[in-house]
This record gives sequence, structure tokens and C-alpha cells, in this order.
Amino acid sequence: MIQDLSLRDAEPGFDVPALPGMALHEVQTPALLIDLDALERNLERMRRFVTERGVRLRAHAKTHKSADIARLQMERGGACGICCQKVSEAEAMVRAGITDILVANEVRDPAKLDRLARLAKRARIIVCADDPEAVADLSSAARGAGVTLEVLVEIDCGAGRCGIAPGLPARDLALAIAAAPGLRFAGIQAYHGRAQHLATEAERRCAIVSAEALTRQTVEMIAAAGLTCEIVGGAGTGTYRHEAASGVWNELQCGSYIFMDADYRRVLGPDAGFEHALFVLTSVMSLASGRAVTDAGLKALAVDSGLPAVHSLDGVSCKGLSDEHCQLDDPLGRLRISQRLQLIPGHCDPTCNLYDWYVGIRGDRVETVWPVTARGKLY
Amino acid sequence: MIQDLSLRDAEPGFDVPALPGMALHEVQTPALLIDLDALERNLERMRRFVTERGVRLRAHAKTHKSADIARLQMERGGACGICCQKVSEAEAMVRAGITDILVANEVRDPAKLDRLARLAKRARIIVCADDPEAVADLSSAARGAGVTLEVLVEIDCGAGRCGIAPGLPARDLALAIAAAPGLRFAGIQAYHGRAQHLATEAERRCAIVSAEALTRQTVEMIAAAGLTCEIVGGAGTGTYRHEAASGVWNELQCGSYIFMDADYRRVLGPDAGFEHALFVLTSVMSLASGRAVTDAGLKALAVDSGLPAVHSLDGVSCKGLSDEHCQLDDPLGRLRISQRLQLIPGHCDPTCNLYDWYVGIRGDRVETVWPVTARGKLY
Repeated sequence: MIQDLSLRDAEPGFDVPALPGMALHEVQTPALLIDLDALERNLERMRRFVTERGVRLRAHAKTHKSADIARLQMERGGACGICCQKVSEAEAMVRAGITDILVANEVRDPAKLDRLARLAKRARIIVCADDPEAVADLSSAARGAGVTLEVLVEIDCGAGRCGIAPGLPARDLALAIAAAPGLRFAGIQAYHGRAQHLATEAERRCAIVSAEALTRQTVEMIAAAGLTCEIVGGAGTGTYRHEAASGVWNELQCGSYIFMDADYRRVLGPDAGFEHALFVLTSVMSLASGRAVTDAGLKALAVDSGLPAVHSLDGVSCKGLSDEHCQLDDPLGRLRISQRLQLIPGHCDPTCNLYDWYVGIRGDRVETVWPVTARGKLY
Repeated sequence: MIQDLSLRDAEPGFDVPALPGMALHEVQTPALLIDLDALERNLERMRRFVTERGVRLRAHAKTHKSADIARLQMERGGACGICCQKVSEAEAMVRAGITDILVANEVRDPAKLDRLARLAKRARIIVCADDPEAVADLSSAARGAGVTLEVLVEIDCGAGRCGIAPGLPARDLALAIAAAPGLRFAGIQAYHGRAQHLATEAERRCAIVSAEALTRQTVEMIAAAGLTCEIVGGAGTGTYRHEAASGVWNELQCGSYIFMDADYRRVLGPDAGFEHALFVLTSVMSLASGRAVTDAGLKALAVDSGLPAVHSLDGVSCKGLSDEHCQLDDPLGRLRISQRLQLIPGHCDPTCNLYDWYVGIRGDRVETVWPVTARGKLY
């Protein structure tokens, strides 16, 4: 059902780790695997959720950086568009044919603003602002390119990272945007990043209840000033049910739901609602020191949110990673040289960014190979 | 003096973050900067060291993954060749013209062995083995390609990762390699990875004294069996002075010396002998929440060995990274929107692997832009 869109003239093992039709055991490791059945089920679960709740999904593409997955999310997964986090990520997505993108971030550098504005000639581009001093530069870039940029006011609803203070400062910024030539005020960005990974459901709910009060108050103040928040965006895989139930947010920005990772599994538990669809395939390359060592290290797996989990091999666990090696604990001594294991990354977003290709498998067979379209696009 | 070798038809800001001749403030961030003066001084310091000590340098290219830097190390930095850690890394280096490569690792998968053997048609290729059962596959791959593969016996000299037991098991493996068609026994790989980052000089010296005894005994046993260890390889930036002084090792495999990083600075102190030559250039993009936020997050900086250090801005420090943001502590409130900062990565190797380009600067001017030749080549 999923077609290979982009592979040509590739040499397996150098340019790509696999080709469609290969058996799983022929894939060169380490490789980034997608279980396509699991991905499609995650896609469908989220589609059903947003349809039933009557909210939009603007799937966050910083998780996967793949135009193929973005297209699936928009064509079959109920997404109205995608989020990107960087201008170059949006550029890669527009080049690959995606035409409705929120850069869910502040952009301040004038050269980046020019790039962003030029992009708006080819796609709907929305961007965030959290500072009245940003408005003139945004306006100037839009006018320079002869486009209209849609702008969300990002508020700090609890994460303490970016975002203007909710309430009056946010309302005044909305008014400034609405008054600026070349800009269209499009709503509020209210994403509580820190809440996503809080350890318990009660803590996450509590954080979003507090964010909801701040967001609602801001939306109402903006409405009282005569402006409409067409978009009230936010939410991630850790909290989206709360935002969807609030009646305040109307656009969810979940990203990790499509893959899940070991950290979200730890936080959300077995009933997270989504399956692991992303794995790093790795091979045992040494047993000489009495411990199994595989070929996936720090350049193959991001460890900022903890070590990877070992998939479907009871008793085997990851003890540590070095640059190019993974050391496993295998108390029963069952692992053999060249044996393949699937590791569940601790954190999917920075792990995907380490690879050039996704190897999409169905059962034990490679069905497709997709480029990681925006891999390394961080500027 | 350093030439730009590889740039063509690039569009600044999308394909590359900078072009030669640009001022530093025009570079699109985040970008991976090399201070070329510092790099050249590090290069020269190590060249002088190995020349004075009468040992060879086989610089580890897993640190930088750059054919341009590998060439500098071989042409001006006293290196006899390079180390790679993966077959695909070696493939990328051979494609770029490097012709003397040790894959300082075990290779067990038959398809990878075939790729490695084919590479030996175009370059001197040396590889490691730590298991008698590996010999037949290595031999078969070499004969299949009609080449001779040079093989080092990797011993576990204290790191407890890969490597056969020193002494008799290592000697017997050396004899098996020497007897196998298509293979040439070339010596010993004795790298103590764990020792590099031990907290004190005394601990590092102690670890290498112990590794030295095991390595010396193994070399002597192999000599008694009638074989010569042409290469006794090992050492990293944390311990190389000890290996060089031992009289046992004859080929040092330092990698990080060329760049230094915050972790090695913590471990080795101010007198490490090498300067910071690698930086991540990042821009302030938000001050709205009262804390400065820049545009370099977990996809721009590896954090496995700690957070980055802030270069040349007293009092400003990194408090944390999320996927796309760096949060700074700036108690004096000196940072401004779009201000550029240089961050010293916690760990250089996995940080370089996140980028497509090095931006080589001299003073405030971009002199060259080099591709990260083997970026993402991990299979």
C-alpha cells in the first residue's frame, strides 16, 4: 500500500542500507526500521481520535523529518498540515511537496526571515512570534517577498522556554501583528513542552489545566480586542487528550505518536494508545569479552532521554553505549555473532535525525526505503 | 593555506550554512565551526610529539569524518594513515582519496566483509579480529575479492568491550590469521577506551600501566611463535603520552586532539596540550520568558558526555537542551536577540556526525567550507 517514492541508482550497503524486496536479515546494520503495520495503526488511531473530538491535527514533522510520512499523515492520518521547527526543515518539506506548514518557533535572523518569506510563495507558511520587536522584521520580510505571512503569538503557558507572557502582553502583540503590513494574525501557539514528559498522568493533567487557564484567558482577551484566534495550537503525545478535551485548543501538534519511543513508554505506560513503530536494527559483532557488543552506538541512537530498550528479547538489556558500540547484558548467554536485534530508541526525534534512510518493513520483508527528507536541516 | 575543495552550486542557508568569504555574522546558525588557526596548531603539536617520540600516528577519523581533515593530518600532521570505525566510513574515505585505513573494529557480517574486501582493491585496508571463528569469513572475503586483508588481533587490555583475552588466546588467533589464505597478520590492536575519560591523571596512568603489561606479554608471545607485530596500535587523546612512552605501542590512534571538547577539557584540565578548535555557532532567538534561548538543541549538540560549555562569555552557561533549543543562564542579562554565541560541544565525535558541513573560519571570516564526508556512515 505504501509506495517507494524516491529510490534510484542506489548501492545497498553504501548509499542505502537496504532495497525493497530484501529480507530483514539482509539489511545492513545499524539501520532505522519502521514497522509499517504499526505505523499505519498509529496513524489511524490518531485520525480517529481527532475526528471524534472535532479538533484538527497538525502533526509535528520534527519527529520524523520525512516528507513521505508527512504525506501519509495528511492524506490518510487526518492531519490538516504539519509543523516544522526550523526554516531549513520547512524548506526541505516544501521542496518535497508539502504545502501547509507551521514553523512552530521564533525566527529572528533577517536572512532566515527572508528565506521563510520566499517559502510562502510556494506554500502556506505560519510562524510564531513572542516579542513586539519581532513584528517589524517579520513584516519587512513578508513585504520584501510580496507575500503574506501568518503569525501566531506564542505564549509561555508553563514551559518557561519561549513565549510571551499570556494575557495583556500577548493581546498587544496580537494587535501589533494584525496591524502590520504583510502579516496576518492567525492565533495562539500554546505548547507546554515540559508537561509532555512529566512522570505521572496526574502531573501532566495538572500542568495542562494550568496552561488551559492561561490560554483561555489570552484567547478571550484577544477576542475582546476584536481578533479571532483561528488557530489555538499546542499539545504533544504526552498530553494531547487533555488539550483536546479542554475546548480551548483546536489544533494538536503531536509528533511522537507516529513512532513512540522508550521514554514515552516509560512515562505513559503500556496504555499509551500507540505502538512502537520505530526500531534501530543492530547486529552482534563481538562476544569475546563475555558481553555481547553490537554495532549501534552514540551515532546511531540518541541517549538524551535514556538508553534504548531491547525489543522482544526477554532478559537482554542495554548496559551502555559508546561512540560506535552498544554493550548488552545477556545473562542467559543466548546471543550469537551476527544476530540481529531491534532496539527501541530512548528518544525518537534526535535518533531519526541521525539517519539518511528509513527502512520500512512489513513482517520480515523490506517494503520501502524512504529518505529522511529534512535530516540535518537545523538552520 | 587551506583550500576549499568541494563546494559548488550551493545555496547558502539551504544547502550550506555559509560560503567562503562571508563574515562570521552572516553564517546561518546553528553551524559547526572550525577555528582553522587552532586546528593547525593542534595538528602541529601532535606532529611534533610523534616525531620526537619516534612513534607513528594513525589519526582516528571517526572524530571528524572529514576527508579534508584526514588529508591535512597525513600531509602536514605526521599521520601515516587514518583509523575508521565502520566499513561505510572507510568506503567514504576511500571514495574521497584516502588510501591507508585501519577499520579499528570487528567486522562480522558477510556482506560487510565483502564490501571491506572490495575496498582493499583501492586502498591499504587493515581490520581487527577478536574471535578465531572470524578467520574463515575474513579469508573467504579476501579471496573472493582477490585481495590481501591485513588483520590485527584486538585484545581486551582493560576496557571490557571487544577484544580477545591477551596472551595465549591472542597468540593462537595471530597464528590462525597468519595461516589463512588472503590474510596477513599485521599486529595487535590494544585500545583502552575506558581509560581515556578516567577522572584523574593517576587513574589514567594506572589503567595504561596495566594495559601495557598485557600488551607487552602478548607481543612477546607472538614473537616467540615467530610472528612480528608490525603494528601495535591503541591510545587516545586522554592517555597517548603513556602509550608513547611505553616502548610497546608504535601507532597512536588519537582522534579528539584535533578539536578538543568540553568533556576532555574537564578530564584533562587546562594543560591538555590542545586547544578548542570546534564550536557550534548558535543565535539567541528568544528572551521572552526572561531566559535566553538559542537555536541549537539536541539535534545540534550531542549531550552523552554533558552539556556544552559557552566560549568566551564569562558568566553565561548552558542550563539545558531540548530538541531544538538551548536554554542559557545569563545572570547579568547581557544577551540580545540574534546575538551569536560559540558553544564548545560536550563530545566532539557524535556532534560532528550531526552536520553536513564544517565552516572553517580564520578570525571573523569564513575561509573554507568542508563536507563532513562520512556523516551518517555508520553501517
